Amino acid sequence: MDGLIVDGHGATALAGDTVMATPSRPAAGLETDERYARAALSRLVEPVDKAMVALVERYGALTIFADLRSGVLQHDRARHWRARLGRLDVDADMRRLSEIDGRLICPGDPEWPEPVDDLGPRRPLVLWVRGRQDLTQVLSKAVAVVGSRAATGYGSHVSAELGASLCDRGWTVVSGAAYGIDAGAHKGALAAGGPTVAVLACGVDVTYPAGHRALLERIAEEGTIVSELPPRESPMRGRFLVRNRLIAALTAGTVIVEASPRSGALNTASEAIALVRPVLAVPGPVTSAMSMGVHQLVRNGMAVLVTNAAEIVEAVGRIGDDLAPETRGPVHPRDGLAPESARVLDALPQRGSRDVDTIAVRAGLATDTVMAALGTLCGEGWVERVSGGWRRTRQ
Amino acid sequence: MDGLIVDGHGATALAGDTVMATPSRPAAGLETDERYARAALSRLVEPVDKAMVALVERYGALTIFADLRSGVLQHDRARHWRARLGRLDVDADMRRLSEIDGRLICPGDPEWPEPVDDLGPRRPLVLWVRGRQDLTQVLSKAVAVVGSRAATGYGSHVSAELGASLCDRGWTVVSGAAYGIDAGAHKGALAAGGPTVAVLACGVDVTYPAGHRALLERIAEEGTIVSELPPRESPMRGRFLVRNRLIAALTAGTVIVEASPRSGALNTASEAIALVRPVLAVPGPVTSAMSMGVHQLVRNGMAVLVTNAAEIVEAVGRIGDDLAPETRGPVHPRDGLAPESARVLDALPQRGSRDVDTIAVRAGLATDTVMAALGTLCGEGWVERVSGGWRRTRQ
Repeated sequence: MDGLIVDGHGATALAGDTVMATPSRPAAGLETDERYARAALSRLVEPVDKAMVALVERYGALTIFADLRSGVLQHDRARHWRARLGRLDVDADMRRLSEIDGRLICPGDPEWPEPVDDLGPRRPLVLWVRGRQDLTQVLSKAVAVVGSRAATGYGSHVSAELGASLCDRGWTVVSGAAYGIDAGAHKGALAAGGPTVAVLACGVDVTYPAGHRALLERIAEEGTIVSELPPRESPMRGRFLVRNRLIAALTAGTVIVEASPRSGALNTASEAIALVRPVLAVPGPVTSAMSMGVHQLVRNGMAVLVTNAAEIVEAVGRIGDDLAPETRGPVHPRDGLAPESARVLDALPQRGSRDVDTIAVRAGLATDTVMAALGTLCGEGWVERVSGGWRRTRQ
Repeated sequence: MDGLIVDGHGATALAGDTVMATPSRPAAGLETDERYARAALSRLVEPVDKAMVALVERYGALTIFADLRSGVLQHDRARHWRARLGRLDVDADMRRLSEIDGRLICPGDPEWPEPVDDLGPRRPLVLWVRGRQDLTQVLSKAVAVVGSRAATGYGSHVSAELGASLCDRGWTVVSGAAYGIDAGAHKGALAAGGPTVAVLACGVDVTYPAGHRALLERIAEEGTIVSELPPRESPMRGRFLVRNRLIAALTAGTVIVEASPRSGALNTASEAIALVRPVLAVPGPVTSAMSMGVHQLVRNGMAVLVTNAAEIVEAVGRIGDDLAPETRGPVHPRDGLAPESARVLDALPQRGSRDVDTIAVRAGLATDTVMAALGTLCGEGWVERVSGGWRRTRQ
């Protein structure tokens, strides 16, 4: 394997930075388990790290972890990967995971959600998971509902409504457990008794935001919490953007409810577009800054406007399976009138009666045509004969 | 001219219904003036009447009117056109027009707005007009702003805002003087001191709706009132739909502010689409029935979503002339940070300080990289050195 060249920034290109990956000898304990090694690497490496993903997929996590620890691994990023080695304690991570009834999911596991593999070298090394449901199952029909933290009352209401309606239609709502739109979506889904998945930018055991303690506990109990970061990791700023790619990748489409022009939700939309998954935008008042980003997505052709769960399901569901009924107004019986009957009816006053000649003048129709139309209208109950003419019936 | 065949339903096809248009001998008074004859026909014929438009364009209004009166004109619709002959008094119409300082505009007049000719056989026979401005001028840059009568407070507010902003940009707002969105658009334009055009479904001297007496008077004074119907004609139901084609045809594009799924505004949108003029839709809350029709237009690809006057002008203006600025969020200085500097900054607590080794572990970066980044961040004023480590500066 000597001399293999792996690009420092990804798996695809062959570039100047070199890595010498020498097969390490088998060792006891930690080093014997590929999944354990992935867990260790997920603590050492800050996502997204395309170089590490490429190395692991090429040589296996066990090999790379061993070589990283022993110093054999030569890579221009290796010194960064070693920065956290001193405090690494995978056993403690695993104990913590077991305390919170969590589990580790790795590529190849039955529960590994294959759609995240569409991320290519940006895919996570592992997923740390809390919750009773099978992840693959719960994500088989899943849609992301995301948006601004600083949501308006309108936005929170709409996201809760959509969360509940999507759940009623058998879809899992995935979001980021943030204040505002995310919270509305999770709560709506929970209220409808459905599964909901929170993808965090911190460890699955960390309560963030602090005000969402009860919500996160309920999601862990009735839904699923997912993160690529190990337990106890805190949410740092850059981690939210990185987390967004997981929300987009785990779902069949992303709904943006409210987003100011700089909202992180727009980043999730970009991730969905990069994955060729539909982005759906819920409009709002043009007077609301919180809807500006959403409207911009529609104007740029990046998102399809949606107004309810049926339209969302139509967009993310299988073709032909889930067609939304078109919004229609009520059908008025007037719609069925022949054009000349309608003109004769228009020529009658709202109150009182009118003689045939006056009706003919007002309608601009010959008298015999007017009489024929009046006969038809009378038969259909629209008009009635009175002394000296015709009048509308009370409908 | 004997034996010429004109289709009863339009000018294009040659069909079974025949008309014998014999040149009439010159007569005194009314019969000598082509424009006078058009005015007379506009009272006899209920628009839209494609057959009459075709006859007038082929033989001239004078000839057709004379032959209609004399009974020489043979056409399957002639008996309807004669229904109002008994009460015809063009001199009275002209006196009334002069009382209200109005004027009659016919095809070929310098003031005739050529865009209405795009309606083909659905074009009006004449236009009755009130107002001081030259119609061609006032319509040279004109956009329709229409919507529901039963507008919400949001819709009325937005239409008034758009009316004023379009006026500020040198565009004339055209609408239908109805309650709700129409009224908002006219009022917004008037408030901004600009011209506005009301296209009525009744005579230009008729106050409809009654509650808009002051508004209509102000439009007549400072703007323009237009109708294809003669003075004193009342607004009958079918006339509103027919009127909508004029609003669409007189403007470079139609903006729909609020519309329930059965709103007449959607009919105006259809007319604009038939004329290949842009339809622009202002979104609103998905919880509002008054925005349902608008959202449906966008979803069906019939309208482009717009959120302000600049976007409207971009869509209806000449290409390249009027590009709307893209909505952007504020640019944060953080955006300029190198990725590793951003990670180091993220690794610092919001309050208090942290030593370099801890920062390195949190950031997942080698110590020398962290120190280099801290130096850069310090130089840019993001961080400062304190005893035992580094902390964020107060920004």
